[in-house]
Amino acid sequence: MIYLDFAAATPVSEKVLLAMRPYFSEQFFNPSAPYLPAKRVKEAYMEAKNQLAHTIGAKGADIVVTAGATESVNLAFSNVHGAILYLATEHAAVREAASIHPHAEINVGKTGLIDLKDLRAKLNDDVEIVSISLANNETGTIQPIAEIAEIVRAARQDRLARGVKTPLYLHSDASQAMSLIDINVARMGIDLLTLNSAKVYGPKGVGALYIAHGVKLNPIVRGGGQERGLRSGTENVAGLIGFATAAVQAKEHINGNRKKYEKLVEILKNELKSSPIEPIFLGNKKHQLANFCAVSFPGIDAERLIYKLEEQEIFVSTGAACAASKGEKSHVLTAMGLSDTEIAGSIRMTLGALNDEEQMHKAGKAIVKAIQEELSRMKGSNE
Amino acid sequence: MIYLDFAAATPVSEKVLLAMRPYFSEQFFNPSAPYLPAKRVKEAYMEAKNQLAHTIGAKGADIVVTAGATESVNLAFSNVHGAILYLATEHAAVREAASIHPHAEINVGKTGLIDLKDLRAKLNDDVEIVSISLANNETGTIQPIAEIAEIVRAARQDRLARGVKTPLYLHSDASQAMSLIDINVARMGIDLLTLNSAKVYGPKGVGALYIAHGVKLNPIVRGGGQERGLRSGTENVAGLIGFATAAVQAKEHINGNRKKYEKLVEILKNELKSSPIEPIFLGNKKHQLANFCAVSFPGIDAERLIYKLEEQEIFVSTGAACAASKGEKSHVLTAMGLSDTEIAGSIRMTLGALNDEEQMHKAGKAIVKAIQEELSRMKGSNE
Repeated sequence: MIYLDFAAATPVSEKVLLAMRPYFSEQFFNPSAPYLPAKRVKEAYMEAKNQLAHTIGAKGADIVVTAGATESVNLAFSNVHGAILYLATEHAAVREAASIHPHAEINVGKTGLIDLKDLRAKLNDDVEIVSISLANNETGTIQPIAEIAEIVRAARQDRLARGVKTPLYLHSDASQAMSLIDINVARMGIDLLTLNSAKVYGPKGVGALYIAHGVKLNPIVRGGGQERGLRSGTENVAGLIGFATAAVQAKEHINGNRKKYEKLVEILKNELKSSPIEPIFLGNKKHQLANFCAVSFPGIDAERLIYKLEEQEIFVSTGAACAASKGEKSHVLTAMGLSDTEIAGSIRMTLGALNDEEQMHKAGKAIVKAIQEELSRMKGSNE
Repeated sequence: MIYLDFAAATPVSEKVLLAMRPYFSEQFFNPSAPYLPAKRVKEAYMEAKNQLAHTIGAKGADIVVTAGATESVNLAFSNVHGAILYLATEHAAVREAASIHPHAEINVGKTGLIDLKDLRAKLNDDVEIVSISLANNETGTIQPIAEIAEIVRAARQDRLARGVKTPLYLHSDASQAMSLIDINVARMGIDLLTLNSAKVYGPKGVGALYIAHGVKLNPIVRGGGQERGLRSGTENVAGLIGFATAAVQAKEHINGNRKKYEKLVEILKNELKSSPIEPIFLGNKKHQLANFCAVSFPGIDAERLIYKLEEQEIFVSTGAACAASKGEKSHVLTAMGLSDTEIAGSIRMTLGALNDEEQMHKAGKAIVKAIQEELSRMKGSNE
């Protein structure tokens, strides 16, 4: 198997599983219970929260644990009374969570980078949240978050000076970025940060939201008052401990992994250059997650390509798994100005822990061969 | 260790862990991804949903998977525009989720059983949801859900006849009941049923909501559209498979476990009868979960008792773990009309898979001894 869809899902690492294991059957106690073994579980939970928080330069008290990134995004938007301004290429979680509020989209350029002028133009006094993912889930495009934060900060100060009371926060979805970008919320100027365990070799069904001091949110799940009352329910102890372990591991290996993936992507791209249809590599390498290879072969039907590769146990995708399953045209590539033919011919390959150089050669050659076959078939049916 | 707090948390069974294991690291694919191994994961997920649904006499399509019972309750109330009528003894999840809507409480009698007259009296045309847990989490009191459903059904028909358009649904929280009561939503007349993995030897952080055909709810987490759009986010595959395995196991052993726990509780109660303070057993054995022993020793400080027992590695609680951790007076026992002294002297013991007869003798004797010591201490300090 050559799995090239790490942006969709990652396997739980052995280290993470080992860390979770005791909290299923031995240290299973309810963290809110009054006796010592339960208090120890609570301590382990709080310690994991601290570990997770430290990977983004925050304190455990700033973190609310959720059941995943989508819930984190929804929680981040829970206290919005005005408008949400988000990037046109944001994930469905942001787009759908924003859909019940007034909202507007910020344009992106050809490589998927934010149009900062458009951000400035649309950042009016109704906007309460600007939501920009650190890196896009279809193209890996990394946004200039510090510059964006600076614009948000300036707008906030301008509001203060004019006596406008509407709060303004910067939310960022770091689901894809977490394993390859060194995140520091203070340095980056982020008020709300969405984190996702399932993309960093942690368990599915766990996420977190960093909430800067002073930002007020509304609970979306009410009950026993856990997680500062913002997300009630018995704590998913094993889940958080797995997530924290995965996050620490990811942080430690950012530089090594970046170099590794840069090399692998280079090999893959070189193979793809032999394609009879010239590949269009999406995004700009300088502002792209190192493990992304998003590419279009205009004229090819990417869905057919995916199935041809699947037969050889090579697994790639067209875009976000949840969007792909509904057969929707990618809003990300549309926003980047790609033509319908370019979009229809696009595949996303995202690398991870299971990949090596040999796989890149093999996958690249298999893709080129599949494209050749598709061209022959099309030629045949045209004759 | 003698653990007597299974209503707060249960260890994940070996069988459940084994069932979950492959879905962490091998079958880790995103269920929405387009290639075969991902589709197999999706199939396993849907099959688990069916298995879980069958344990309550429903179909998989009627089930929405959540991150726990608290979230299920919040989702059950997500489309309410009118009022919620709930039992005075409901868990914080129901009380807090209802708090943002107009709401009223239904009285209970001395043993915690619903006052059906009060239900009828308060079931006016504003009420959209009647929420009654199948069994209470502090006393184990089992409510006559079929009778309650009959009253709700009659009110619904009466509304129809009078042309009142307000919908009326019966929601029940089955978190505690699931492992000891044979649940069938159709037979019981339940429209919305909350299920909890963490109370039936499944993993924490997983729950479900049964939604009867025709009941419309609003998403509380929006995004990629998973779970019929009601609960977006990548599916917690291992979690649901663990939950379903646990639910099937629980269902298979309902009768055996009931008999086992009846016997163990009997032994425990007999031991407690030697207490110098006569124990008041809360609830009515005929309408009580077989694994519950809720008891008051008026005049004793239950919190001190718990710490004395803890020193001998006997773990009991005062009530709901989440309420206990905040030091709140039990609203359940208050609603049942217990005096402050009776409430202050109340402990909850809930039995489970780790318990045996010897433990019951030992725990009972230890409690009696602790009470004797407390009495001596109090006598001493009064002299």
